[in-house]
Amino acid sequence: MYNPVGVAAIGLGRWAYVMADAYTKSEKLKLVTCYSRTEEKREKFGKRYNCAGDPTMEALLAREDVEMVVITVPNDKHAEVIEQCARAGKHIYVEKPISVSLEHAQRIDQVIKETGVKFLCGHSSRRLGALRTMKKMIATKEIGEVSSIEAVFSNERGLELKKGNWRGDPATAPGGPLTQLGVHQIDNLQFLLGPVARVFNFGKPMYTEVENITVNQTLLEFEDGKQAYLGTNWACPGVFSINVYGTKANLFYQLDFSWWSNSDVTDEHSTLIKREFASMSDDPDNRILRDVKVDFEPVDHLRVEVEEVADVIRNGGETEIDAEASLRNLAVVLAAVKSVHEKRPVEIAEIIG
Amino acid sequence: MYNPVGVAAIGLGRWAYVMADAYTKSEKLKLVTCYSRTEEKREKFGKRYNCAGDPTMEALLAREDVEMVVITVPNDKHAEVIEQCARAGKHIYVEKPISVSLEHAQRIDQVIKETGVKFLCGHSSRRLGALRTMKKMIATKEIGEVSSIEAVFSNERGLELKKGNWRGDPATAPGGPLTQLGVHQIDNLQFLLGPVARVFNFGKPMYTEVENITVNQTLLEFEDGKQAYLGTNWACPGVFSINVYGTKANLFYQLDFSWWSNSDVTDEHSTLIKREFASMSDDPDNRILRDVKVDFEPVDHLRVEVEEVADVIRNGGETEIDAEASLRNLAVVLAAVKSVHEKRPVEIAEIIG
Repeated sequence: MYNPVGVAAIGLGRWAYVMADAYTKSEKLKLVTCYSRTEEKREKFGKRYNCAGDPTMEALLAREDVEMVVITVPNDKHAEVIEQCARAGKHIYVEKPISVSLEHAQRIDQVIKETGVKFLCGHSSRRLGALRTMKKMIATKEIGEVSSIEAVFSNERGLELKKGNWRGDPATAPGGPLTQLGVHQIDNLQFLLGPVARVFNFGKPMYTEVENITVNQTLLEFEDGKQAYLGTNWACPGVFSINVYGTKANLFYQLDFSWWSNSDVTDEHSTLIKREFASMSDDPDNRILRDVKVDFEPVDHLRVEVEEVADVIRNGGETEIDAEASLRNLAVVLAAVKSVHEKRPVEIAEIIG
Repeated sequence: MYNPVGVAAIGLGRWAYVMADAYTKSEKLKLVTCYSRTEEKREKFGKRYNCAGDPTMEALLAREDVEMVVITVPNDKHAEVIEQCARAGKHIYVEKPISVSLEHAQRIDQVIKETGVKFLCGHSSRRLGALRTMKKMIATKEIGEVSSIEAVFSNERGLELKKGNWRGDPATAPGGPLTQLGVHQIDNLQFLLGPVARVFNFGKPMYTEVENITVNQTLLEFEDGKQAYLGTNWACPGVFSINVYGTKANLFYQLDFSWWSNSDVTDEHSTLIKREFASMSDDPDNRILRDVKVDFEPVDHLRVEVEEVADVIRNGGETEIDAEASLRNLAVVLAAVKSVHEKRPVEIAEIIG
């Protein structure tokens, strides 16, 4: 029998509900309480998920039935809240990105190491069934060697951003969709290809009233010389796609962004296609390609990542995405933003030195 | 009644056959003769298409029944052959790219202007039914404003290149697939978005025994500030795709590269998908996307471009892709190659001054 891990939700905006919808279905986790500065929000959330609400962080952290916190406060508050929770001995799940400043990310990394609590940053999309399958197909060389990758994560949110929204502010959302969407794909790309070495980015505000970048197109070169493209755009209907080009076959992955926040069915609304040669010939005009569907096990990407924290709490070991890995994802975002300002390729080593 | 334009084929390699398969079906054109230095090649081609063969360029150019030449000699021979033909008063169709050096392209442009012959460079893919439809959907703003584009043209040819092949030599095929494949998409991108202002490229030889670049990933910024990505890769099964992201809808275009050289059915083996909102909501989690197929008139992309030269010969006017436009496509290739060497974004103005 699994003794469920007691969870507290901290920060009760839209994403807290999306996360709770996922992890409250798990037998490994038990949501016991929540916290927001606003009483109304605590009451609404508590009623929805049948949990308590604590009026202060101190009260919440003093509870012995809380072993783990799920943090969905704004990005620039992550460091402060994580430090408070970790010092109280609570294990941490925090929404991606780990933070929007390198100093904050380094402080988080330091605090996690000092306190020894378990930590996971919510780069959930690498958990998707298709991502796991692509990773395996690359490792087994079923598609040959990888010659390049293209990843896109875009939606229409920049078109609706009003002045004053934190997403429209370069300080709280550097690179706009690069921070909010792209960091998922940066994590996926580093998951598939290893560490990024340098990036170049064209980015600018387009079709928006905010001053922040809303359209980015980024090139990434990896430490082993492979390269990838990342498109992140806040000025078009939703897209989430990854194309892997291999010497023997290509993979085309698409998920229907309509179902992104319904993590139990995201995988059902996605397709992974393998393009290979149906017939080969010495005459290049006589080669026929075919596209075949690749099946994979569907996964609830948000549920499994929170469950992983419970697993390492109960069984020991480390989570897949620790503070250092998520700091490295942030570093790629920051390098891409620096590249826009300095109009040159930027080394990741310049950021995390 | 259309009085067919007399055509001579110059350069009798693989592509001469692909072209002749297309234009000999046209009532506007009549293939009368051909030329290659190799007698065997002239005989084989003449037999296949029931046309004469001339033993020298001089003999061919002296023929009064030749009004137009279809030139498919190697890229680095374009300038010399074009000049010879234009000075003899023959109208010109030349395979893309216009040349592989700026000096040659400028010489061609000059000669065409001096002699006043009609000229077309074979950037055929902008003729494809889907390209025409995308151009219209951008112009009418049916997809809103364009926020970014991604274009890919790749195939496996770099994996088979042997040392000594001109495609493996940076001097005769600068940027490898960028010259041979990418120039089509560069033309398409400038057709859709206007002139490119600057480019940045990551490119390198991968999985090949030649010294030339076989994998490129290129970012392009246009004079009006829009931006695009271009992927050209000689180390994967064939891909030809264009994604247009708009503020109201996205377009996803794919053609099956197996049918690229069968220009009468290329369009039949392609799909154009429009992604739009099936339902909108103030709640971003409550928006549903849908993909709908866009129909378009199929076109024989190689046939119509050669027919266009015949049309302007008979009816006056200018072709759609003159020497200046194709020189501008070459300039983008050369800027991208320079970007690899100098590890910085390169302005098109640095190339064509």
